[in-house]
Amino acid sequence: MSESPQDPTPQGGRVERPVAFEDPAYLAAVVDLLGVISYGEMSAFERLAEDAKMAPNLADKAELARMASTEFGHFDRLRERLAELGADPFEAMSPFQKPFDAFHARTAPSDWLEGLVKAYVGDGLAADFYREIAAFLDTGTRDLIIESLADAGQSRFVVDRVRGAIADDHRVGGRLALWGRRLMGEALSQAQRVAAERDALSALLSGGVDRPGMDLAAIGRLFTRLTENHSQRMEALGLAA
Amino acid sequence: MSESPQDPTPQGGRVERPVAFEDPAYLAAVVDLLGVISYGEMSAFERLAEDAKMAPNLADKAELARMASTEFGHFDRLRERLAELGADPFEAMSPFQKPFDAFHARTAPSDWLEGLVKAYVGDGLAADFYREIAAFLDTGTRDLIIESLADAGQSRFVVDRVRGAIADDHRVGGRLALWGRRLMGEALSQAQRVAAERDALSALLSGGVDRPGMDLAAIGRLFTRLTENHSQRMEALGLAA
Repeated sequence: MSESPQDPTPQGGRVERPVAFEDPAYLAAVVDLLGVISYGEMSAFERLAEDAKMAPNLADKAELARMASTEFGHFDRLRERLAELGADPFEAMSPFQKPFDAFHARTAPSDWLEGLVKAYVGDGLAADFYREIAAFLDTGTRDLIIESLADAGQSRFVVDRVRGAIADDHRVGGRLALWGRRLMGEALSQAQRVAAERDALSALLSGGVDRPGMDLAAIGRLFTRLTENHSQRMEALGLAA
Repeated sequence: MSESPQDPTPQGGRVERPVAFEDPAYLAAVVDLLGVISYGEMSAFERLAEDAKMAPNLADKAELARMASTEFGHFDRLRERLAELGADPFEAMSPFQKPFDAFHARTAPSDWLEGLVKAYVGDGLAADFYREIAAFLDTGTRDLIIESLADAGQSRFVVDRVRGAIADDHRVGGRLALWGRRLMGEALSQAQRVAAERDALSALLSGGVDRPGMDLAAIGRLFTRLTENHSQRMEALGLAA
């Protein structure tokens, strides 16, 4: 007997692939999820590199460049994982290019502080959301996602800079509070668009025949949690949510 | 006897510091050199992240983002080393901001291929030049510099893309050959400006009382080597130098 008929990776078995992936719907959903997260990381890289130009000095510029490089490192691991799962990584990302680009076009920061708030609030919201979905996944995928969402150092740096700017001029706080609300609104509207278009992805949240998921009430509670965390982040920045 | 009078690092001695650093002129020159290289790396990060926007597809964009992140990694190690030497890293970089920014302003690529040629030709020239200077330094500094100049993967990628574009349309070759010559001219003119303004740095090349250096004839030969290597890179791209 040269091969077990139960071998889940008949093409050579280089990759350890949990039994969950035998369900093609699950595999499609994970590819979609890794696709959206990796495009988000690439998008974060681009945005941070762009915002670095507005830095008031070389040291602050280097901080943003560091965050951008960290996001690229996450992107790279997610891309590798997509390839291991037999997916074309860039094809997996392409459905998410439009909504992300639309989000960034609608929320182009007009100065250094708006860029910092966007990095902090936007990445925080995305991380919360993906972490909630990751709870329903196999451990390998879950660990990779959670590791990719680790704070790239932005929190302390951004909180410090934004609080400092408000201390210098309290009017800054009012403007940035409005900005934070607008970011949340635009993010939710793009997320809704993605959920409506990507059935496999939303099925991850609502569950399947033998996969746990969320009913409508649970999804409502999820949105409450996301909103509460957003408010806490705004508060950490010294801003009214 | 609590302390050796010969201790070269009386403030705690966390860093192993070769005897060469007891000469303040040498220390100043090394700080200058690490300053110019690290600002160059930061500048390369910014330029590659900017050029990534012109990528024809997501996979090529990711390649440029990877190079940018690699350059940031080099920047970070050089910055650390400057701090270990007791210098303010950003102060050490600041004299070089103007010439680098001027170089980039005068050589802003107008499309994806010009960006690739600039990354390849510009980084190659800089690496050749710093490697020549590094030959006169203590081994610790030399190794760090040589490691920082390691090819961030651009060579194969750029050669492949530029040769492909010329194969598709041979007129591209004529345009990019002119571009390569312009890059070389602008780089030399900015390098000359730096050499004229930074005495410590040019003293590294010409040597000191008990430090080897280059006489005028040797500096002439250095420029010949730099020009020859530039021609070889242009040839690798399929371009007339």
